[in-house]
Amino acid sequence: MSELVYGWIKRVSVTPPSLKDNTADAERFENALKAVLNAEIADIDLTLLRKLPDLLRKFDFNPRCILFKDHKKWCVAGITGDDDKIVAGLAVDLGTTTVVLRLIDLSTGQEMAENSFSNPQISIGQDILTRIHFAEKENGLETLNRLIIDGLNLAIAELCESSNISPSAIYLVSVAGNTAMTNLFLGLNPRFLIREPYIPVINRPGCLNTCELGINANQSAKIFVFPNTGSYFGGDLVAGILYSGLNRSEKTAILVDVGTNAEVVLGNKNWLVACAGAAGPALEGGVTKMGMMAGPGVIDRVSVNPETGLFSIHTIEDLPPRGICGSGIIDLAAALFLSGMIDIRGKFVSDACGTRLFEKDGLKHFIVISAEESSEGFDLTISQADIDSLIRSKAAMHTILETIASYVGISLSELSKFYVAGTFGSLINPRSAITIGMMPDLPEGTYKSIGNSSLEGASMILKDCRLMDEIDAIRNSITYIELNVNQDFMNRFSAARFIPHTDLSLFPSGNPVSSSSAQEKD
Amino acid sequence: MSELVYGWIKRVSVTPPSLKDNTADAERFENALKAVLNAEIADIDLTLLRKLPDLLRKFDFNPRCILFKDHKKWCVAGITGDDDKIVAGLAVDLGTTTVVLRLIDLSTGQEMAENSFSNPQISIGQDILTRIHFAEKENGLETLNRLIIDGLNLAIAELCESSNISPSAIYLVSVAGNTAMTNLFLGLNPRFLIREPYIPVINRPGCLNTCELGINANQSAKIFVFPNTGSYFGGDLVAGILYSGLNRSEKTAILVDVGTNAEVVLGNKNWLVACAGAAGPALEGGVTKMGMMAGPGVIDRVSVNPETGLFSIHTIEDLPPRGICGSGIIDLAAALFLSGMIDIRGKFVSDACGTRLFEKDGLKHFIVISAEESSEGFDLTISQADIDSLIRSKAAMHTILETIASYVGISLSELSKFYVAGTFGSLINPRSAITIGMMPDLPEGTYKSIGNSSLEGASMILKDCRLMDEIDAIRNSITYIELNVNQDFMNRFSAARFIPHTDLSLFPSGNPVSSSSAQEKD
Repeated sequence: MSELVYGWIKRVSVTPPSLKDNTADAERFENALKAVLNAEIADIDLTLLRKLPDLLRKFDFNPRCILFKDHKKWCVAGITGDDDKIVAGLAVDLGTTTVVLRLIDLSTGQEMAENSFSNPQISIGQDILTRIHFAEKENGLETLNRLIIDGLNLAIAELCESSNISPSAIYLVSVAGNTAMTNLFLGLNPRFLIREPYIPVINRPGCLNTCELGINANQSAKIFVFPNTGSYFGGDLVAGILYSGLNRSEKTAILVDVGTNAEVVLGNKNWLVACAGAAGPALEGGVTKMGMMAGPGVIDRVSVNPETGLFSIHTIEDLPPRGICGSGIIDLAAALFLSGMIDIRGKFVSDACGTRLFEKDGLKHFIVISAEESSEGFDLTISQADIDSLIRSKAAMHTILETIASYVGISLSELSKFYVAGTFGSLINPRSAITIGMMPDLPEGTYKSIGNSSLEGASMILKDCRLMDEIDAIRNSITYIELNVNQDFMNRFSAARFIPHTDLSLFPSGNPVSSSSAQEKD
Repeated sequence: MSELVYGWIKRVSVTPPSLKDNTADAERFENALKAVLNAEIADIDLTLLRKLPDLLRKFDFNPRCILFKDHKKWCVAGITGDDDKIVAGLAVDLGTTTVVLRLIDLSTGQEMAENSFSNPQISIGQDILTRIHFAEKENGLETLNRLIIDGLNLAIAELCESSNISPSAIYLVSVAGNTAMTNLFLGLNPRFLIREPYIPVINRPGCLNTCELGINANQSAKIFVFPNTGSYFGGDLVAGILYSGLNRSEKTAILVDVGTNAEVVLGNKNWLVACAGAAGPALEGGVTKMGMMAGPGVIDRVSVNPETGLFSIHTIEDLPPRGICGSGIIDLAAALFLSGMIDIRGKFVSDACGTRLFEKDGLKHFIVISAEESSEGFDLTISQADIDSLIRSKAAMHTILETIASYVGISLSELSKFYVAGTFGSLINPRSAITIGMMPDLPEGTYKSIGNSSLEGASMILKDCRLMDEIDAIRNSITYIELNVNQDFMNRFSAARFIPHTDLSLFPSGNPVSSSSAQEKD
């Protein structure tokens, strides 16, 4: 692969010193860099400065420099020669639940390896709020910070070993995470994030030294931490916008990161509006007894034959089913609705369900997988409460989408693209999400799953030095709107609690089965 | 004492956050600072950032900030309230032989305490060249760096204890030293300082964090290291120029730091020309058997009664004499010359010396203090070789002064002020120095001893934030000229090897005794 033209590695020709020009090495080097970059340079760190004279002479005053930049300044992260040694960058998606790392060859932009681990802070608390409260205890913040830094260092060591490089070959690190995770990662107390008026310690952490954060990389490596726009809109989403290209789009599009919290950005190259709201844990497979995270043997796709009413079940790695993940539940709800087994309110229809429905503790349960077919040896069931919970979640999701669209005065049907981010998002079948009225009824080609957009955005910035300005422009152009749970919101929510919606004109592509079913039961 | 108007402590009014303004604490604080300073601010260090939210709230978003600045950026060194706690600064003269520290109250500018210690690097080598060579050995640089940092920390602890403050009360440190000492202090290898083309690692170290240098001060304290203009013109001299005011002077003046090396700056508010040259160790009392550094019982002043030819000796603290320091030797040479005991070539005149002169190992010796008068129990003597050495030194000094003056096309007699820097310089009697032809024959009021101008310059910058630009202007306006030992220089040197000089018109105030004596022997 050829060298990246807009990468972070630049050749710098330094005028060698002479008796007539006795400028010190640091200023000499800085002047040469300024000429290449046509910009001001931050002071070279003491660690690098201590090696500078030898490095300049070793590379005949014609070194390759590894640079980085934030909204304020260019920094020097390393100086190297023409040898074949790998100069690596590390992109990190700093998730509350899972942390994903990707190693990138900075000279070619090629991906070298990827690695992920469960955020070790989970031992303190599954959700971020518990962790924030823990951070207020004595040594709480230090403990949380230590957990994530140690976890990262372990993962870096593994990643480097598998790529046959030393951690000292890592010169640049980019990190995208939500605001609270970013605070904890930097050792900044997040206490004011959760107290009115919800203030982060810093919006734009910019470029820091990996060594002052205790991260195992080159001694002079720099780390860029994606900026946030407040407590509720973090660097992971800024990275996601960068990756989706929403901010460069001529036509208005939307980016949705679906999870316990739904984070939504609507906009185009001229403006960006964002909001976030609780969509409910049902969407992540968090409530149903058989719900679980995606993994081997987990049902991720369900479809129904409209003629026979028979379900077709798919599990990850085609193993005997042991549970169901979020995308499976959405598919299942759509299948149940299309086959008339649940009605427009999401209630089980006894006649249609037949023997698969039974009552236990006064609550209806539906057998999705019988004990014989399951890997677990017992029936995998879904209850009326589970379906109710899913309906609330999908209603919340749709309400959030409607609210943000109405805020900017457009209809959801006008969206040119609908980007779905996140691992969960990548599994959702848009057709099913439309069927249950969770997502707007757009042509299927409009939907685009973009996977871990936070990691992708963090990777992009390691390959193209021009993007730093874009990141800043994204951050600055976001208008964050608070979702006020007012009468208007509640009216929208109530209307969205039907399948697909009380206003069927919003879902013109509605399946014949679904509409007949809706008519029958209404 | 009232608060310094142009000190480094500034009151900053930060707009408290609200739901309508959720800017993070760091950016909020930075914006408020920008409004006060009307300048860009460097990123707040992580150590301070970690305390920022609590500090802002503790001081009701109306804190006092301790700032610092270098040629590039303003930095925040600390945040404090209105309590009476001392906020201190530390000025350091980083001498090759002696390190002097002064503690200053940053709010009033008042000096709190002073302390000095022998540079512990002397254990490696008395002179800087030995140390530079040692720095090239394995762990040599680390050893030298450790010695000076540990020495400083010990002195800081003592200074703080005597002033009843904690080292964490020190927020700003300013350091002035020669280029080699500055390199060693920063842990930068000085190897290229002594190899053609004599390149320092850095000219303008600017503001650094005391913690990364291992200096015991506040965790977020900043340290400013005075800039150099090359290997031979260090930050100590830049500080000296600042203190002397040479760079603000309407009329051309000169600043001379006399020592083993004579460092000379000539100029006015429009230009500064500098040079340095070996003046010889004789001037520091380094060669004669009875020579020593100034201290109790050391002869620092000698005069002669022209009528009787009797010497009058003064010792420091009026103790019985045990040796003689540089200023005493200059006085002694002048007295010997004025009383006709040495001739115009500096040779002892047997008739005039009488019984005080004796020969040993073929070399003439002159008894300055007899065994009975001395504290040592033996005669304190000075040999012909000692006088010869002094003559060479004074000739070198005068040649350097003449050379630099002729470089800019002025006569030494035009100088409006002659600043003499250094502890040694402060002891010199200008009249004696003129008598032997070491210094030009200027009216006595023209001479001004300015003491430890390096320490004074380092102190000034702690009291007046406007001076940073001046320091930079000084550094940038210095033209450093190499003293080429060419025919011209040698001719001047030869002429200056007479007392006071072959050209008596240069010394119109010449003492009748000296001129008669000169005439007699010539």
